[in-house]
Amino acid sequence: MVFDKILIAYDGSHGAERALMKATELARLCAAQLVVLTVYRHHSMLEASLSMVRGSVEPGGNLDEAMRGTARDAADYAKSHASDAGVARVSAFIKAGQPARTIVAVAEEKGCDLIVVGSRGLGATEGYLLGSVSHKVTGLADCPVMVV
Amino acid sequence: MVFDKILIAYDGSHGAERALMKATELARLCAAQLVVLTVYRHHSMLEASLSMVRGSVEPGGNLDEAMRGTARDAADYAKSHASDAGVARVSAFIKAGQPARTIVAVAEEKGCDLIVVGSRGLGATEGYLLGSVSHKVTGLADCPVMVV
Repeated sequence: MVFDKILIAYDGSHGAERALMKATELARLCAAQLVVLTVYRHHSMLEASLSMVRGSVEPGGNLDEAMRGTARDAADYAKSHASDAGVARVSAFIKAGQPARTIVAVAEEKGCDLIVVGSRGLGATEGYLLGSVSHKVTGLADCPVMVV
Repeated sequence: MVFDKILIAYDGSHGAERALMKATELARLCAAQLVVLTVYRHHSMLEASLSMVRGSVEPGGNLDEAMRGTARDAADYAKSHASDAGVARVSAFIKAGQPARTIVAVAEEKGCDLIVVGSRGLGATEGYLLGSVSHKVTGLADCPVMVV
């Protein structure tokens, strides 16, 4: 088949939603396995910036928990969507880390042969100048990357 | 179908070769129309740099002719490959211009719903820093872009 195992990076954004639709259609057409991945930022990654504006350092447990919960909800939603649309084999994972590097690392670890990501939805100039997650993923990945 | 009209940007490079293989497989699977596009640089675009090293200005006709011929050969090769591989509807075009902008403009003009491009084959850092044609295309295109 053209693709056997497709990773869809899903964060609940508008761009990710469109990417999920395409990844689902493609997985069904290819009879491919679909791997949903939602990456979230771990508390310690926000600590540096937050500690600048917070008066005192509070325990990060609750924030971590909330971010993990939101990521879990997003991943579960994407998994349900794909299953309902007729993709037979779907799994969903969440992982804390830097988005682009984490997406590429998980795709390699799980042996995916296509990564599908949403575009930022920015205009051409802004997107190009800022450098989006999708640009970083296409730069880092060894397998084909579809930017939707 | 998932994709109805796929544009493959083919310039004869190693990356474009891999992209051609994937685009061909995908076009066959989707029963999609395949549009081969080879972009080449027009003589006038090289004039500024060449005139710096050339003693005298020579007519650009021959150089244009040679570049157009090479582009034609590349496009024809890609078209034959796709036809031989079982893609029923394939057309091939050559066009002078800036690669990324020309690829995106032709895709829009012809109503393509997927653009397939090769990655530069550079390491992650170099590719990311230099900014490749594939990065520019993903930044400019309104339709999904697959970087192979």
